Amino acid sequence: MSRVLGIDVGGTKVAIGVSGSDGPELSAHVRLDTGPGTLARALAAARALEGSPAAVGFSTCGVIRDGVVRLAPNVPGWEGLELPRLLREEYGDIPVAIDNDVNAAAAAELRWGALRGVSTGVYVNLGTGLAAALVVDGHVVPGAHGAAGEIGYLQVTPGEPAFTDGRAPLEERVSGGALAARGAALLGRPTTAAELLAEAGARELVEEALRTLAMSVANLCVVLDPECLVVGGGMMGAADLIMPRLAAELARAVPFPPEPRPARFAGDAPLLGALALARAALA
Amino acid sequence: MSRVLGIDVGGTKVAIGVSGSDGPELSAHVRLDTGPGTLARALAAARALEGSPAAVGFSTCGVIRDGVVRLAPNVPGWEGLELPRLLREEYGDIPVAIDNDVNAAAAAELRWGALRGVSTGVYVNLGTGLAAALVVDGHVVPGAHGAAGEIGYLQVTPGEPAFTDGRAPLEERVSGGALAARGAALLGRPTTAAELLAEAGARELVEEALRTLAMSVANLCVVLDPECLVVGGGMMGAADLIMPRLAAELARAVPFPPEPRPARFAGDAPLLGALALARAALA
Repeated sequence: MSRVLGIDVGGTKVAIGVSGSDGPELSAHVRLDTGPGTLARALAAARALEGSPAAVGFSTCGVIRDGVVRLAPNVPGWEGLELPRLLREEYGDIPVAIDNDVNAAAAAELRWGALRGVSTGVYVNLGTGLAAALVVDGHVVPGAHGAAGEIGYLQVTPGEPAFTDGRAPLEERVSGGALAARGAALLGRPTTAAELLAEAGARELVEEALRTLAMSVANLCVVLDPECLVVGGGMMGAADLIMPRLAAELARAVPFPPEPRPARFAGDAPLLGALALARAALA
Repeated sequence: MSRVLGIDVGGTKVAIGVSGSDGPELSAHVRLDTGPGTLARALAAARALEGSPAAVGFSTCGVIRDGVVRLAPNVPGWEGLELPRLLREEYGDIPVAIDNDVNAAAAAELRWGALRGVSTGVYVNLGTGLAAALVVDGHVVPGAHGAAGEIGYLQVTPGEPAFTDGRAPLEERVSGGALAARGAALLGRPTTAAELLAEAGARELVEEALRTLAMSVANLCVVLDPECLVVGGGMMGAADLIMPRLAAELARAVPFPPEPRPARFAGDAPLLGALALARAALA
């Protein structure tokens, strides 16, 4: 089978992998830190790893809109980058597919994981940031501007500061990054969101975050009426605490509760997603 | 052009129409009150109006799930009705399409109205009840159980009483029926939601409802990232008050604000929707 190349540019790391099969296995891979000249270094490393891929999938934070990266405040130099043009220059006529990291992770779950065979589904990524992917008719919904599923921007309280105030109301309450920061301030030492969830000294903070997360996920399921809800991302290190809460809230608040499932893929989901995008671009 | 039949069963009235063109014009129509034996009376009236339709579209409150009507508490005898089987018995091999009234109204807007040519869109119906339709790839999304867009069940406050408590949190706050009831209690006389919105003596109630509605509609647009938002239903009698509030909230809180538009069709939208469903079933 032809070899495809996947490139994932995340907030702190770039992951590059090659696959020679239609499955979630890598035949070669390499990782770099993000930093100055991230794209040029990533493309050079990709070239060294696989000189003639049949297709390329690219997964990135932010969304692609009018040919440039938007909504990517966390990677210096990334917002405004003309990613589609730069990738066309590098790869010429080879099929290249680009999507954001969470949509890419959902593409991997659809092709090889917990969303396989699902027609209407929701994928929620509880990572450093917070975002979701919507699946309709077995495909990830892009939205009119590539921003479908960007649930970090949901308001929780009517009229509160929101997108144009530079805020992401739901993400600031329940994302892994926000919880880790608030937990560290409360406990006086570094912590991760997954550790914090099991921390007795942070019970109130954790309880409020879980209640808000559960409502928001249930609301998302009221809107789309999915057959299943798949949850991934780094906070799933505390899946034992998170999944029962989400399941209970779906049963309580959604007319036709979807089946909650943990994602099949963990930290490498966006890279596997890039490979899934590349494989789909070949078909 | 062949004639198609549309039947809309609403909370208080049944509307039946015949159309001989692919447009929102009726060549004949009749209205009945709902009440005992609604379906049998509606089918008899439809038979009298058009004996040999090429296709039939049926729009109804509630959703069809496992062959019966669900989520239709407001029409006595309607919940649990085996509507698909009964319509097959009446119409035999003629194409019959059934959908809920709000999805049907969105189908009419897609085929002939404000959603024409739209790929990703949201239709919100501010009627006696509150519901939405989601449009992806130019089609109304049904959801896994026919319940996509049932935004009346959205929670506004984390953990509040919800679906399994017999509640519809958002609908109870901002639907036309809920506002009319709360307005009548406040003012000591009957009122409609549209009248109430312009009523100085109800400013606090109205302000809270508009703020909650605006947040919920903006959140829906954050989730789906539509190119436009179409608003219909009886409360649009106060469109001058509602649309600027929604437009301002979309601009404030949605990363890529969709264009807000009033629906083209008013009270007859579900009947026109039934005709649009029938026309689509012929294609």
